[in-house]
Amino acid sequence: MIVSKQLTLSTRGNGDTIDMTPGVERALKESQLASGVITLFVVGSTAALTTIEYEDGVIADLGRVLEKMAPRHAEYEHHLRWGDDNGHSHVRAALLGPTLSIPFVAGRLTLGMWQQIILIDFDTRPRQREVVAQIIGE
Amino acid sequence: MIVSKQLTLSTRGNGDTIDMTPGVERALKESQLASGVITLFVVGSTAALTTIEYEDGVIADLGRVLEKMAPRHAEYEHHLRWGDDNGHSHVRAALLGPTLSIPFVAGRLTLGMWQQIILIDFDTRPRQREVVAQIIGE
Amino acid sequence: MIVSKQLTLSTRGNGDTIDMTPGVERALKESQLASGVITLFVVGSTAALTTIEYEDGVIADLGRVLEKMAPRHAEYEHHLRWGDDNGHSHVRAALLGPTLSIPFVAGRLTLGMWQQIILIDFDTRPRQREVVAQIIGE
Repeated sequence: MIVSKQLTLSTRGNGDTIDMTPGVERALKESQLASGVITLFVVGSTAALTTIEYEDGVIADLGRVLEKMAPRHAEYEHHLRWGDDNGHSHVRAALLGPTLSIPFVAGRLTLGMWQQIILIDFDTRPRQREVVAQIIGE
Repeated sequence: MIVSKQLTLSTRGNGDTIDMTPGVERALKESQLASGVITLFVVGSTAALTTIEYEDGVIADLGRVLEKMAPRHAEYEHHLRWGDDNGHSHVRAALLGPTLSIPFVAGRLTLGMWQQIILIDFDTRPRQREVVAQIIGE
Repeated sequence: MIVSKQLTLSTRGNGDTIDMTPGVERALKESQLASGVITLFVVGSTAALTTIEYEDGVIADLGRVLEKMAPRHAEYEHHLRWGDDNGHSHVRAALLGPTLSIPFVAGRLTLGMWQQIILIDFDTRPRQREVVAQIIGE
């Protein structure tokens, strides 16, 4: 069986990192499925999904590493061509990726105790984000 | 229901970045499935899949960041052991990953308007690449 | 049909990289499914999954690039807050990601000949790791 859900999130952009775990758990519960895989996919090319221990220290650490890899204020060809200021957002999102597949067993996500599902919005302005949750299971 | 497709692409290697979106959309249409998940997987360890806004500027920006992370002409132990010249290709491919799972709803991929599916071939020569598309849906 | 398996691995931590391919192939064989997708997910926020050519040279090369990106002995806010020493482990795991989806066709994973499934344990001590393998297929 397949159940489609859509999660909508308001972000502040600029690396804003949101714990999506409660919303994903709610979607799974509503599906009433017991065993399967939930595929999450963020629509758009300047945000990404991954898992992390959701605490301010680690989130700042990840942000600092990403800033070193693809600095906010470096020169990007994307800026020259389109007048945008979010070249680093595109690069970071492509590196981390838009998708996450999480198994569930006996109605529960198989996350670790200190492992949360996060959306990072790399864009340079507040945005409303849509994450598609496709739940395949039985 | 499960439908297996295989997409074959000719690349120039050296970071050649191909927009796979039209091919994936065609595979989905041929499957005649309405709702589910399409799992893409590139065979081989020197290429990767992700999504991006497919325009030359962003692609060059991503390439420059990857060059800084794992430079083409640095020393790699892989070279010493195997006489290869593609150590950076292996490292970049492992970092980005070989797989992408994309939901579809009402027969359409849930991509954003400026979000395309790309294959990046990091190898140092032209190659023929195979991407498996496994479509699970109803 | 959905078959759930759990793979348990003992690691030495500190970037220990384990070839999971034989274990995943065994799980797939036991499922007796012919065509579908196997979703792997590592429980916890200091380990990651990807594919690579499993040979010592490439593994050392990847480790060196990750050390440059998120050095073992840099300062991390995670350390200050929790007295931990594994800030780099969290950052590296979040960048690589906890999940991998691999199609199988005619009972075989669609891996390349030089492409293995690896778990990298970034934590700073030996650990017992659990990888959930959710097999959806027919």
